[in-house]
Amino acid sequence: MIEAGIIGGAGYTAGELIRILLRHPEVNLNFVYSTSQPGKSVSSIHQDLVGETDLTFFNQVNKEADVVFLCLGHGNSKKFLSDNQFSKKTKIVDLSSDFRMKSEEHSFVYGLPEMNKEEIKGANFIANPGCFATAITLAILPLADNGLIKEDVHVNAVTGATGAGTSLSETTHFTWRDNNFSAYKSFEHQHLQEIGQCVKQLQKDHKVNINFIPNRGNFSRGIHATAYTKFSGELEEAKGLYQEFYKDAAFTFVTEGDLHLKQVVNTNKCLLRLQKFGDKLLVTSVIDNLLKGASGQAVQNMNLMFGLDEKTGLGLKGSYF
Amino acid sequence: MIEAGIIGGAGYTAGELIRILLRHPEVNLNFVYSTSQPGKSVSSIHQDLVGETDLTFFNQVNKEADVVFLCLGHGNSKKFLSDNQFSKKTKIVDLSSDFRMKSEEHSFVYGLPEMNKEEIKGANFIANPGCFATAITLAILPLADNGLIKEDVHVNAVTGATGAGTSLSETTHFTWRDNNFSAYKSFEHQHLQEIGQCVKQLQKDHKVNINFIPNRGNFSRGIHATAYTKFSGELEEAKGLYQEFYKDAAFTFVTEGDLHLKQVVNTNKCLLRLQKFGDKLLVTSVIDNLLKGASGQAVQNMNLMFGLDEKTGLGLKGSYF
Amino acid sequence: MIEAGIIGGAGYTAGELIRILLRHPEVNLNFVYSTSQPGKSVSSIHQDLVGETDLTFFNQVNKEADVVFLCLGHGNSKKFLSDNQFSKKTKIVDLSSDFRMKSEEHSFVYGLPEMNKEEIKGANFIANPGCFATAITLAILPLADNGLIKEDVHVNAVTGATGAGTSLSETTHFTWRDNNFSAYKSFEHQHLQEIGQCVKQLQKDHKVNINFIPNRGNFSRGIHATAYTKFSGELEEAKGLYQEFYKDAAFTFVTEGDLHLKQVVNTNKCLLRLQKFGDKLLVTSVIDNLLKGASGQAVQNMNLMFGLDEKTGLGLKGSYF
Amino acid sequence: MIEAGIIGGAGYTAGELIRILLRHPEVNLNFVYSTSQPGKSVSSIHQDLVGETDLTFFNQVNKEADVVFLCLGHGNSKKFLSDNQFSKKTKIVDLSSDFRMKSEEHSFVYGLPEMNKEEIKGANFIANPGCFATAITLAILPLADNGLIKEDVHVNAVTGATGAGTSLSETTHFTWRDNNFSAYKSFEHQHLQEIGQCVKQLQKDHKVNINFIPNRGNFSRGIHATAYTKFSGELEEAKGLYQEFYKDAAFTFVTEGDLHLKQVVNTNKCLLRLQKFGDKLLVTSVIDNLLKGASGQAVQNMNLMFGLDEKTGLGLKGSYF
Repeated sequence: MIEAGIIGGAGYTAGELIRILLRHPEVNLNFVYSTSQPGKSVSSIHQDLVGETDLTFFNQVNKEADVVFLCLGHGNSKKFLSDNQFSKKTKIVDLSSDFRMKSEEHSFVYGLPEMNKEEIKGANFIANPGCFATAITLAILPLADNGLIKEDVHVNAVTGATGAGTSLSETTHFTWRDNNFSAYKSFEHQHLQEIGQCVKQLQKDHKVNINFIPNRGNFSRGIHATAYTKFSGELEEAKGLYQEFYKDAAFTFVTEGDLHLKQVVNTNKCLLRLQKFGDKLLVTSVIDNLLKGASGQAVQNMNLMFGLDEKTGLGLKGSYF
Repeated sequence: MIEAGIIGGAGYTAGELIRILLRHPEVNLNFVYSTSQPGKSVSSIHQDLVGETDLTFFNQVNKEADVVFLCLGHGNSKKFLSDNQFSKKTKIVDLSSDFRMKSEEHSFVYGLPEMNKEEIKGANFIANPGCFATAITLAILPLADNGLIKEDVHVNAVTGATGAGTSLSETTHFTWRDNNFSAYKSFEHQHLQEIGQCVKQLQKDHKVNINFIPNRGNFSRGIHATAYTKFSGELEEAKGLYQEFYKDAAFTFVTEGDLHLKQVVNTNKCLLRLQKFGDKLLVTSVIDNLLKGASGQAVQNMNLMFGLDEKTGLGLKGSYF
Repeated sequence: MIEAGIIGGAGYTAGELIRILLRHPEVNLNFVYSTSQPGKSVSSIHQDLVGETDLTFFNQVNKEADVVFLCLGHGNSKKFLSDNQFSKKTKIVDLSSDFRMKSEEHSFVYGLPEMNKEEIKGANFIANPGCFATAITLAILPLADNGLIKEDVHVNAVTGATGAGTSLSETTHFTWRDNNFSAYKSFEHQHLQEIGQCVKQLQKDHKVNINFIPNRGNFSRGIHATAYTKFSGELEEAKGLYQEFYKDAAFTFVTEGDLHLKQVVNTNKCLLRLQKFGDKLLVTSVIDNLLKGASGQAVQNMNLMFGLDEKTGLGLKGSYF
Repeated sequence: MIEAGIIGGAGYTAGELIRILLRHPEVNLNFVYSTSQPGKSVSSIHQDLVGETDLTFFNQVNKEADVVFLCLGHGNSKKFLSDNQFSKKTKIVDLSSDFRMKSEEHSFVYGLPEMNKEEIKGANFIANPGCFATAITLAILPLADNGLIKEDVHVNAVTGATGAGTSLSETTHFTWRDNNFSAYKSFEHQHLQEIGQCVKQLQKDHKVNINFIPNRGNFSRGIHATAYTKFSGELEEAKGLYQEFYKDAAFTFVTEGDLHLKQVVNTNKCLLRLQKFGDKLLVTSVIDNLLKGASGQAVQNMNLMFGLDEKTGLGLKGSYF
């Protein structure tokens, strides 16, 4: 069994990891580290787990764990790893943005299996992608892989309230958000960097803009993104490129017909829809921001690093309704 | 024109008062007092008012105002009034619970027009009823008035998130509340005192229990309450009592057929439905917790105190959808 | 008093018209025509009106009415008007799309007061704009008026479920729509025609594309739209153009700071926010689809046609929460 | 492998069964019968299943299946079984109400494992309990088992929109239900019969009323119920009775602290909370109406009938948020 630990256990992504790992056939959840809740039972915070686990939060880490997931706020993973030394065998999956941009100062691999599967298999350190970045990158990567992103890409995406984390703020207050909608961080969302890095990895000469308007939706889970750009070929040609690019993908599928967010909620899937209008290719992409956009993908990466089938423990029943 | 002031201008009930008073034909909104937002424009906090008012929050009160509405937290009105002396002519409408229970220490009149209309007309100080108290009291008052509450009353009510105020808490976080439901303060909600006081005012020998389970609903506005008790007469007899009791009510109506919460949202109305099952009379009651349950009723009380038609400025268009 | 009639009284836009006209100080709601509900009380269908009106639906029209609002499905207004002859003095406001495109076959004026105020004042027949068309056109009209739409405009907008009408369908089923999101009619929404006609009226040489992705949101009321295009000037210059263009607008305002949908729900306002990123101007626009996007604008047009202040009867209290 | 079939495959409960059975380690989903969708792919109706199954709907049944689940409307199971003869070995789990009331005319066992586990293990025909009936019965059964239901039980429960099925109606229209709340079928809900039958099975002299007010909530999944009655013992005594009664229950747990609906959404659990106020015991009960209230419990019954661990295939990851 893989002995796994979670660092920063009280937030949404940690909760999802716990839910998945408790049911994972090859994993023993060794410890959940929390400085804010030490000694408390895990099910007192993640209250759906009543009757399923007796785990309590610890304020100490097991340095011999086989894998450790970092669910700390952005900016805190780097500090945590310099303050806490794990054994050489310990693999790290970091869910923050700290190591997503390539740098000579670290050896983290960007954990998007659809792009970097072989590298992930051999990696010890994984930078798990951002949620918007996952939804949007998967929508355009097959184009980049074929050198076909030649003009501006126009992206509009909406995320649920879990995307903002557990902290309380005006825009996560129920009264504010219920039946509301608003754009934020237009053209300047921090995930644009990751998306650009991915596109350039496959399309080296990539120079065009990705115009991205993120929105706050009045739902809890999920991301729905639309992306369009100029594409001179036929729709069938585009579908062929996408089918080919994702032929080995475990969770990313090209679909026909209408697509809506709830098709993927509580699953690790990314569903894509392709349409052609005039000279533009429109790609719609939906994911669960906490699963394929965070904890599900983290476990997918863990599976790959440990030589397991990518889907192990991730055959989740969607909630759909 | 009635010169009106609002004390504690940043919360939900203050916002509703501002919305109503800005449109009230006999009122000039003289000042909105806020210690947290002095100098800020009112529309920067109550952001739907953009384009409708240039008012700013003040940190001083006008002691010569004709009427002052207190929108302070429970427990703070008493202190505010002892720290701030208004002119003799200034009428006070307090939206907190500080003066709702009769006492020899104060001369506030309980501002439920359906019960105390004449007293309100002559009052200088009004204790505006609680939201749950309004919905539930109006559901059972005609029975009390006829000495007919003889066995336990069983009440279940659900309130929207605005009932919890603007402060942030776990149960007002969108992610928690969205698509969720929970009971709280069962049998012990603080409004039970007010309700009991009202019932006893009309039915002096009243001794039975009111069993009340409040619930948190996943909507923003409104209260839906059901109340049942033993009633030996026919349904038509009950309807007759209610019709008679509310024949002069400006906003409380007995309806036929299904009743649902959105029939009253964004209005000052209370709608009641009566049904008989076996030996039990079931009364369903719906109000908007911020209007008939707070700011709308406060203006209704003001209208009565100043000799205006009770409905002045309260012919609000419901949002319904 | 203006004697008003409504044709097709059971739908959402008719309901909103009834709510507004019952409170309009210069209007008597003379009749509400419905072939599906004749003889039924209006408040049995529009159930928030209990206690406010005794009107019943008629299956006959008053041909001498001063103004008649047509709330029939798209395609039915033309037929209705050829089957029913009104008096010469009767003014018509059609809420369908039947007469929105200019044609030699009819003399309807496109009822967007921000663009056609003088024409509307003298008109007898008004084609009331579509909801998406209103939100989007108001977002870009000042640019067109200055000949500044020179490259593609990229529009993404989301509408509430009332936008789909009262008829039942898979995508208006609560279970489907709750916490869901989906794009539809991308690049091909029927309102693109109206928007193009408006832009061309002000910018004669307009030839660029408006790329429009409409979305279904999981809320009941409102439209939130973002539109961006290349704009070489400074942000302040853009703001100046918009302020100038809307200086006489009764309900359209340029705001500063964050903008969200609920700022306009249950009002007749359109709020706009301008931002500049690189060489692009981003305009965010919010309206209530049933009010500024339908019935509120219809009454605004009526006010203009009858020489009233544009705002009469439209000083609606927003629901905000 | 157990060869399983589903009759009536297009509705909500069938969808949930398909989701569970596709992941069940001991089951092969042999066929999904649908007269409305024959030949269509299952994932075209249950659209979250894209990428997970190639099954299509059939309009023929496999009479040799090991187990068949009937997901037909109430009243249709009886007819279906008289029109379609299965092999002697075929076990039937009926999700309708057709066989829930004991009768000499059939040999169906009421499939509430917490009450009838041994009978279920030996049964060939199971009548799967109703959703409200499950939530409410589990809240009061330990009292009945100890002969302690001596006065009226007062029950208030709220269900999500999936409780009303896939058919479209006014009260399942998003615009109606969004942010709304309403009681219906008060004191007369059809599940009262089942509940009474369960209580009487354990407390033979049971004669008191169960006063039940069901409500429509504005969420998709789940039931939240409160039930109270007179109880002369201490709270700890009650907790002891419940703990003892449910000590072998696989999915029903007594919890401490606050309880809310989302703790069980997308799981097969029933969570109970006990509180004492004066002489009354209040029990709060939450389930997912489609799982413990329908399809999850159906699979739990199947597991028992085939000698499997009750939990097999039902260790579902909750969606929680």
